Amino acid sequence: MSKVRAFAPATVANMGCGFDIMGMTLDGVGDVVSVEVKEGDGLRIENRTEVELPDDIEKNVITPAVRALMEAFGEKRQVDVTIERKISPGSGIGSSAASSAAAVYALNEALGRPFADERLVEFAMEGEKLISGGTPHADNVGPSLLGGVVLLRGYEPLDIVRLPVPDNFCCSVAHPAIMVSTRMAREVLPKDIPLRTAVKQWGNVAGLVAGLSLKDVNLVGRAMCDVVVEPYRKQFIPGFDALREKVLAAGALAFNISGAGPSVFTLSSDMDVAARVGEIMCEHFATEGVGSDIYVCKVSNVGARVLND
Amino acid sequence: MSKVRAFAPATVANMGCGFDIMGMTLDGVGDVVSVEVKEGDGLRIENRTEVELPDDIEKNVITPAVRALMEAFGEKRQVDVTIERKISPGSGIGSSAASSAAAVYALNEALGRPFADERLVEFAMEGEKLISGGTPHADNVGPSLLGGVVLLRGYEPLDIVRLPVPDNFCCSVAHPAIMVSTRMAREVLPKDIPLRTAVKQWGNVAGLVAGLSLKDVNLVGRAMCDVVVEPYRKQFIPGFDALREKVLAAGALAFNISGAGPSVFTLSSDMDVAARVGEIMCEHFATEGVGSDIYVCKVSNVGARVLND
Repeated sequence: MSKVRAFAPATVANMGCGFDIMGMTLDGVGDVVSVEVKEGDGLRIENRTEVELPDDIEKNVITPAVRALMEAFGEKRQVDVTIERKISPGSGIGSSAASSAAAVYALNEALGRPFADERLVEFAMEGEKLISGGTPHADNVGPSLLGGVVLLRGYEPLDIVRLPVPDNFCCSVAHPAIMVSTRMAREVLPKDIPLRTAVKQWGNVAGLVAGLSLKDVNLVGRAMCDVVVEPYRKQFIPGFDALREKVLAAGALAFNISGAGPSVFTLSSDMDVAARVGEIMCEHFATEGVGSDIYVCKVSNVGARVLND
Repeated sequence: MSKVRAFAPATVANMGCGFDIMGMTLDGVGDVVSVEVKEGDGLRIENRTEVELPDDIEKNVITPAVRALMEAFGEKRQVDVTIERKISPGSGIGSSAASSAAAVYALNEALGRPFADERLVEFAMEGEKLISGGTPHADNVGPSLLGGVVLLRGYEPLDIVRLPVPDNFCCSVAHPAIMVSTRMAREVLPKDIPLRTAVKQWGNVAGLVAGLSLKDVNLVGRAMCDVVVEPYRKQFIPGFDALREKVLAAGALAFNISGAGPSVFTLSSDMDVAARVGEIMCEHFATEGVGSDIYVCKVSNVGARVLND
């Protein structure tokens, strides 16, 4: 019998231009899950948070993630999962990913670490598959497990590249109290895009990765710009363009939609700026008649980890 | 009166996935141009090579590049340009770019270096504008002037990022004796592409830049893969798919079209492999009834430079 508590951080997928291929890790915000492994064969999930989650474990993202790991492990065990802390679902900062990531991370530890962290990404992706209707994504589970910026070069086979983030990357995230389902956010996207627009986007993707490598926060800021997806999704976010102007004027280096939204985030190179920008975003949504949760934190190089009691 | 001889290297634009935003510098292949600056006001261009070039200087790429520099310089001079060595035009390894780059580099030196190298890229781009029918590109002039891999994050304003290349990057280029005009190579491209395909491409672009930064030649090889442009342009190159199979079997890490073609190139991490691959490419085109020029060289971190007599 072995019990492990793990934390897995919230994440910002897409990072502006890197739609579907990139995500980054937030510091201090995330899910806490404990996993107990016993003799037997089964899976129980208990939700001890105030967040409402489906009672049916077949609808919980943790289930397919845990089952994928146990199948690869090849021996039967009774696995008891307790969700102790949970980011609000639909927040756009990788809520489901943090749950799957924390669960597989804790389970792997409880089993004596049979799998490398990169392999855990594949298991956690099974949870993402459940909510995305079959398409596996790793742009949230990747950074939640591995930390830093995680790049998915390709999915067939899965090619994960981890890039460290410079120390001074600060993030302000606003989660406005609006419901935008991932499905809705996907359906609004065009099937085809102009080649000219695609070239602009991959110029920015290249600039973003180069900026991270060269630790050039200004280059990262210039490159964190989405000409493909944002034009279609910003309609869901009240006063999007006006808010961008306000946060850039306050010193933020970039302003984008986090994941499929409705959360938005800014990048800054200074915690004071990040804090001020957080206030501006909160005021903005209040003026629009929308409440919001604000997170101001560093971008972290540390992903999922064991919590000692 | 001041006279300077300069060399500017050949370059491989696009590098597979980086269509229109990236190029790399070859070692040892390139153009040699000398520039003499005297009192007066005018431009003369003399071609001392065996390559046929237009007699009308208005049709020579060097002319708009030199004029752009002189206009920014703001004083009048008589500029006499002599082309001493020239890569074949239409080779797909940045022939026109090497001429413009060598000319502006030599001219800047002859004037006492009034401009930084990055500024020279803007002048040399005027030459590219002449041959592309108005669209300025820097994916050949950039690396030819600056060396290494040059990334064009954006054009408005021009945002140039230089990335150093690891020492062991070797390139084999084959220039088959086929005429493919840049115009023809452009016209065959679709105006729109599927968003799914674009995402794959920018995943590879991100992987390519990450691989360069992490000095991971295998990642660079995996990422140097073009799912957008190659499907339309490979028809111009006899036996393209069969040749790819042969060079990859011989140890090359990637095989792609150089620039708009018809040249093709491979990346290897070893000069012996690069040499063997060069032979395979030469044999391949011979079997197809097409002669070819083969270049086997390192990828270089050095761009345009002064040649001492």
